Amino acid sequence: MKRLFLAALTGLTLAGPSLAQPTGDLGLIVERASGSLLVVDQSDRARIGRITGLGDLSHASLVYSPDERFAYVFGRDGGLTKVDILEQSVVNRVMQAGNSIGGAISDDGRFVAVSNYEPGGVRIFDADTLDMVADIPTGSKTIGLVDIPGTKFVFSLWDEGETWIADMSGETPGITRIPGMGSNPYDALVTGDGRTYIAGLFGDDHLTALDLWQPQPEPKPILDGYAKGREGLPVYKMPHLEGWAQAGGEFVLPAVGQHEVLWVDARSLTETGRTETYGQPVFAMSRPDGRHVWVNFAHPLNDTIQVIDSVTKQVVHEFKPGPGVLHMEFTPRGREVWLSVRDAGKVMVYDTQTFEKLSEIDAESPSGIFFTARAHRTGM
Amino acid sequence: MKRLFLAALTGLTLAGPSLAQPTGDLGLIVERASGSLLVVDQSDRARIGRITGLGDLSHASLVYSPDERFAYVFGRDGGLTKVDILEQSVVNRVMQAGNSIGGAISDDGRFVAVSNYEPGGVRIFDADTLDMVADIPTGSKTIGLVDIPGTKFVFSLWDEGETWIADMSGETPGITRIPGMGSNPYDALVTGDGRTYIAGLFGDDHLTALDLWQPQPEPKPILDGYAKGREGLPVYKMPHLEGWAQAGGEFVLPAVGQHEVLWVDARSLTETGRTETYGQPVFAMSRPDGRHVWVNFAHPLNDTIQVIDSVTKQVVHEFKPGPGVLHMEFTPRGREVWLSVRDAGKVMVYDTQTFEKLSEIDAESPSGIFFTARAHRTGM
Repeated sequence: MKRLFLAALTGLTLAGPSLAQPTGDLGLIVERASGSLLVVDQSDRARIGRITGLGDLSHASLVYSPDERFAYVFGRDGGLTKVDILEQSVVNRVMQAGNSIGGAISDDGRFVAVSNYEPGGVRIFDADTLDMVADIPTGSKTIGLVDIPGTKFVFSLWDEGETWIADMSGETPGITRIPGMGSNPYDALVTGDGRTYIAGLFGDDHLTALDLWQPQPEPKPILDGYAKGREGLPVYKMPHLEGWAQAGGEFVLPAVGQHEVLWVDARSLTETGRTETYGQPVFAMSRPDGRHVWVNFAHPLNDTIQVIDSVTKQVVHEFKPGPGVLHMEFTPRGREVWLSVRDAGKVMVYDTQTFEKLSEIDAESPSGIFFTARAHRTGM
Repeated sequence: MKRLFLAALTGLTLAGPSLAQPTGDLGLIVERASGSLLVVDQSDRARIGRITGLGDLSHASLVYSPDERFAYVFGRDGGLTKVDILEQSVVNRVMQAGNSIGGAISDDGRFVAVSNYEPGGVRIFDADTLDMVADIPTGSKTIGLVDIPGTKFVFSLWDEGETWIADMSGETPGITRIPGMGSNPYDALVTGDGRTYIAGLFGDDHLTALDLWQPQPEPKPILDGYAKGREGLPVYKMPHLEGWAQAGGEFVLPAVGQHEVLWVDARSLTETGRTETYGQPVFAMSRPDGRHVWVNFAHPLNDTIQVIDSVTKQVVHEFKPGPGVLHMEFTPRGREVWLSVRDAGKVMVYDTQTFEKLSEIDAESPSGIFFTARAHRTGM
């Protein structure tokens, strides 16, 4: 109330946060060079503020509280920062590890989990206070951390080739270990229903899937030998799987070290096709309705976007938004897409039906774009 | 600002709306007898206000603006009311017809469409001003109105057995007519990706599906003769299809005039099973992860809920929340479910993992429960 009180008395209009601000169409854009977050309004296609002091945000990601007010930002430097998008301020910040790589929030909003490289393992924090409530050492770098229903988290061990399920519904974490996932899982995805977990492997020429609805899930290799007989290109950037796409009953997965995306039947998990792409795909993301899949590419071809039709599996649109297209985020019902064009210092907004550019927003080396609608989804 | 200004000067704390109120975890509950809406906070499991003066709210439904601030309420009396859940007030209200039955909001948030019985047809309004921007007479009662991507609405004609697609992306509505849907479509659903539209029929012993990704969708009868050889029971209440469930690759549909739900393969649209239920199902709703389906029933058996496992298709839980269980709404990631128990004057909140009752909230003859997360979904 304090700021309001003064403002009202002095008759000043308030800078920064507004008084009656809904949060359903807000978002945060990671400004990696300056360690800040741009607060954006989706409906107005505008920046409405900036939150600073978040440390090293290279490769940073974040999740939202269920009310779409708070974001938990996972910095590469091991910092876990809680920000308030209404007040546009840092609420709390802890250095929870030396080097971390993403996190998740439980389905009840009570716990935030962080996946660490140095030291390895997963640490789990109270979402209100950021007090650590569980420390799960793994003796390995951990990757592919996601939330699933029932106050559970799933993650994989780079060194051990295992996937672990941590059940936080009881007093102490219950751990289920699933060995035999394959060599060096580097990232993973979970489907929107929290049922199918797919790990990408750096050391094997396949991916591995788990049916998390089974009491004791069994690793199932999929797309075995997808690069067989072809020389792998030098990998400029590992593709991201959290930017997975499910389109009309199929998954679309970026191939490692190849210029193609792979189509997989979402039910049988068998290959249904491949689409040759302009470069090494980094993100292959489905428009929320699944009809189109948008793909960006690794350096030096990261100035281009291709749009693939999920029925014909053909590229239906290609364009060059600018240098360093790092990330994309669709509005919740898919009508618009926002693209981070790092080296242009801009975020660009496009109509996904007409491909027309609708707006440009200045940003400092923008990377990840995260809309608050993620608060309502599983496995984000 | 006015109210704030006074409040600050006089040092009063504000009644009703708070200053920094995120909207991601709010909801509205229809109080049919009193023509009011209860404003609720999902995270606190609490009522935080009431909005009055909405006319006849029997069989009322609503949709949300993309920012999760405004709701558009479709009253049975033909009233279209825009309410502000932050200010907890009615913003605008128009009597747009004599008798209406639900509506939808376009994917870009610009248009609100209402489906009318008297006169028939669909009317489309500017979401900001509620000015009518299109009047689409059909010479028939219209039902099953949904939004799909591309600023389009889909609805069906009770008398004509047709489905129409209205494209609002241009200056004037473009109408696609699809005849041959069957006799007396009474309700319809669209899948979350906006691709498959399924109409329930009162005059035929099957349902009819459309693939909206086809340029000219062809009606496809499904579940033909699902009640053949069995005497239909008197129908106490038509089942709702908008409370459809997609669970692990299958749809679950309430059968008309039978004590069962029908399972349909979401891809082939063939029947995959039936589950006998306690009464005539009204809503069969999937927990967001699809593992469980919750079913309520028509009078006189409307005091009971059954929970069905989508893998085994067996009832795994049954309980009696109280008299007149009219509606249910899951929290976005499915951890809790809210139930309207009309004749107990209560909304009850349950944990969907443990089935434990977490809270009760007093309400005046509560019926529909609508959480703001619906703003981010297609076909709601």
